Formats: sequence, C-alpha cells, structure tokens
Amino acid sequence: MTRAELAEQINSKKSFLCLGLDTDIRKIPQHLLDTEDPVFEFNKQIIDQTAEFTVAYKPNIAFYEAMGPKGWVSLQKTLDYIPDNCFTIADAKRGDIGNTSGLYARTFFDKASSGLSFDSVTVAPYMGRDSVEPFFEFEGKWVILLGLTSNEGSQDFQNLDLAEGKKLYEKVLERSQEWGGPDKMMYVVGATKAESLKSIRQIIPDHFLLVPGVGAQGGSLEEVSVYGMNKDCGLLVNSSRGIIYASSGEDFAEKARAEAQKLQLEMAQYLDKYR
Amino acid sequence: MTRAELAEQINSKKSFLCLGLDTDIRKIPQHLLDTEDPVFEFNKQIIDQTAEFTVAYKPNIAFYEAMGPKGWVSLQKTLDYIPDNCFTIADAKRGDIGNTSGLYARTFFDKASSGLSFDSVTVAPYMGRDSVEPFFEFEGKWVILLGLTSNEGSQDFQNLDLAEGKKLYEKVLERSQEWGGPDKMMYVVGATKAESLKSIRQIIPDHFLLVPGVGAQGGSLEEVSVYGMNKDCGLLVNSSRGIIYASSGEDFAEKARAEAQKLQLEMAQYLDKYR
Repeated sequence: MTRAELAEQINSKKSFLCLGLDTDIRKIPQHLLDTEDPVFEFNKQIIDQTAEFTVAYKPNIAFYEAMGPKGWVSLQKTLDYIPDNCFTIADAKRGDIGNTSGLYARTFFDKASSGLSFDSVTVAPYMGRDSVEPFFEFEGKWVILLGLTSNEGSQDFQNLDLAEGKKLYEKVLERSQEWGGPDKMMYVVGATKAESLKSIRQIIPDHFLLVPGVGAQGGSLEEVSVYGMNKDCGLLVNSSRGIIYASSGEDFAEKARAEAQKLQLEMAQYLDKYR
Repeated sequence: MTRAELAEQINSKKSFLCLGLDTDIRKIPQHLLDTEDPVFEFNKQIIDQTAEFTVAYKPNIAFYEAMGPKGWVSLQKTLDYIPDNCFTIADAKRGDIGNTSGLYARTFFDKASSGLSFDSVTVAPYMGRDSVEPFFEFEGKWVILLGLTSNEGSQDFQNLDLAEGKKLYEKVLERSQEWGGPDKMMYVVGATKAESLKSIRQIIPDHFLLVPGVGAQGGSLEEVSVYGMNKDCGLLVNSSRGIIYASSGEDFAEKARAEAQKLQLEMAQYLDKYR
C-alpha cells in the first residue's frame, strides 16, 4: 500500500486506528478452543467486526511463532483474511547483517517463499544501515524502525545522551532518514512520551509514526494527536489488548467492535481538530 | 547446558567452534533437492560430519522462517538431531516489550509450546532491561546479547560516543551485566574488531563471547584468541559459509568436515598457547 492510499483510507474511515492482533491461545474465549484453528477463528471474528473502523492490522509475530509451525499457518490465514484496504504490519522487531536481513525480508514480504506478504515490518536499529536496507529491496514495502519505545527499558539506552548533544533515539531518527524517506519508512514512537513527540516532529516532520501504548500502556490519544499529527495525519495509533480482550465471553467480537468504534469516533474528532 | 558443561565440552573436543547453520535452499547441492526435506537432509549430513569438532551449532533463524511453516519444521528436526553434548544457539536477534519477549522465549525455549528447546537465543539490546529479562525465566537457558557486531552498520549507532565518555556498545556491555551473570548471559562481539576485544575484556572479563565474522567476514582467529580468551576459554567462534558451503557438490559434507577439522586443530593450538 502506498502512502497516498494509506492517507485515503484514513480520510475515508476517519480513523488512524491500528489494531494489534496479539492473539494468545491462552487468553481467547473457551468456546473457540474446539474449532480447527482457534487463533485464526478469533482473528477472523475480530477482523469482521472491526475492519470498518481500522486502517491497519498489526499481528504481533511472537504470539504466532510461539506456537510453532501451526502458529505460522494461523498467521498466513489471518493475513490473507485482512481486507485489501487495510495496511498490514508484521510486528517482528527483526534486524541482522545484510544477507540475513534479506532473508527476514523474504519472510514477511515474499509470499512465494514464506506464504506471507505484509505491507510492512518493524525493524530494530541497533545493527545500523546495512541491517535495514535489504527490506527496501521489495518494491512498495515499508520498514517501521524502532525510534523511542514505550517500555521502561527505553531508558536504558534509547534515552542516553550522546557526546554530540542529542539523545540516542534522536540520532537514530536523524541518521536513518538517509536510508528511507517518508514514502517507505515509518517509526515506532511510544505514546507514553507524548511531550517528546513535539521534538520528534522537528526531526521527522513528514514520516508516519506507529504509536503503541495508548490504552493499556497509558498514553493519551489526544496528546498524541496534538503533538504528533501532520497534514497527512501521519499517525497510526495502536491498541491491542484493550480491543481484542474487551470481553472473554462469546460476545468478544461485538465488544471489540464497540471498543474499536469508540476509538474511531475519538480519532475522527482529532482529525478535524488538529490536522 | 551449564557453563561448566560447556567448558567441559571445549576441553574434551579441544575446540571452541560454533557452526552456523545458515542453510539456504537456493545454495544447497542439487542432488538434495529431491529429498523430502532438503534443508534438514543437508543439516543432518553436515552435523554427522562436523559434530566431532564442534561445540555449538547456531541455526540462523531467518533462513528457516523465510520458508514459512515448513522451514520451522526443518528447524525442529535439525535441533532434535544435534547431539546433546553440543550447545545450541537460536540466532534470532529478538527483543520486544516484556510480555512479547516472554512469547519469544517460549518460541525458542519451550518445546511443549513451539516444538523447540534451544540452549540460548540471541537478543538485541535496544529496548533495554525488560525486553531481555523474560528470557531468563526459563531455568538453565541463556541470552546472548548483541554487543558489538561485525557489520559496517555497527558504526552507525554502536560506536557512537556517549556524553559520559564511553561508546554505546561499552555501555550496553556494562549495564546489561546487572541483568544476567556469566552463567546465563553471553555477548555477540564481532571479530573484525579484534583490538577492541582487549577493552571489552576489561568490562566483561568472565562472560563467554560469541564471535561471528571469522573467515568470510575476515577476522583473524589467532587475534581473537589472544585478546578474547579467558580461563574457561570464554569464546565461541562462529563459522558458517566457510564450512557449510565448502563444496557445492555431492562431497559437501566431507569438505565441511575438513574445514571444521582445520579450524578445530588451529583452536587446539590456541587453547594451549593463550588460555
């Protein structure tokens, strides 16, 4: 999906909601456990009920690979089921030396090889340029690079002060812009640091930001919108557990729909107000 | 495998060779392509011929997952086939927020969940402490944290000078020691920086180092041994392509054996000389 197509979806759905499919076989409603592929069945019903309000789906790859080969089959079926008008993100946090990153790119982008063809994949920056560039060899695909994450451990290294006066994550944002422009790269920026968003937008005014941590992790959607939005919206705000586990009963999909719609309605306001 | 057991294997085989199973279906000998599982068949023959000289096997996970679910089956069969007296490393470069890292830990350590039970997994440090600690919840398992990698991109961030006077990778080595001692953590340290090994050993004198980049990537085994060895040896030096692709013909496994033995003989000398 191109940037223009993504912007069009945001406008037409009046939403910048990314729905995280962190589907845990230990947490899904009991009555699904008798089906042939409970994880896919859960995702299918969630997607059916939320696609109207959602511009991006983000399966968290750990949850699928923890189940071994059958988890990858559930992932394939889920990805195939996501409507074409939704942007897809493999939240995989990969990254390795060049030839190995090339194989990770095949994993998530080359359907003939792996059975999967996501629009994008999240990548960790620690190994630098040649660990990221192989992902760009797939035309039309996106890298979503970790900038500033929302967890406590982001203090350990991302927030360190460099001798040149910047913080490490600011340097990551700055240097990596040479690798990919706003038409093929996005950044993960943790919402619990909504104030940092202002200075982040000075470094990367045009890129889309994938913002985790609204809801369960405590960020404020309005603050993120005020400081993070640009003229194309420029935000994908993720919610996972708050939607998919809104109910643990047979009504889980309806309850997920209600939560997704609630967020979409709030987003529609902010799109009018802050864009 | 415990540190004492690993040290015992190094002593008994007079080797600190880690063999990287970067098995690429596009590169393995033609005659194997007719077998039911060419990747496993290749690995099986490589393991048969090299186990005598090898203390650790390191499947590079990207090569398996790029093939989709059947790649994970080949990986499971390969791991099951590796002799119990060899240390096993999932070279996966994972790392995410706590609950997600917990799932990655299940992927590589919890056979009941994923079909895999490696001794260790490589982890990227960018997301900090809470992205690493969930891996330690599996008793007896190891984290191998990225310190200084051997690729060109290591210059982009790992080598940046911090305001406090250290380089980023030095800070990573220093801070992460609070998370796991030398009985459950190792570090990836690129061999092409053999001189840096001396200063690295001042920060982490006791930890084992996983050293990629000897051979194809140009590091010198003797330099690594001089600067990197400690009283338990403290080194696992990896070779992948130089061994597994020593021949592209039907003699690939015999040629791999010869290359592995050559390295082992050199290692035996250095164990006598520099330990």
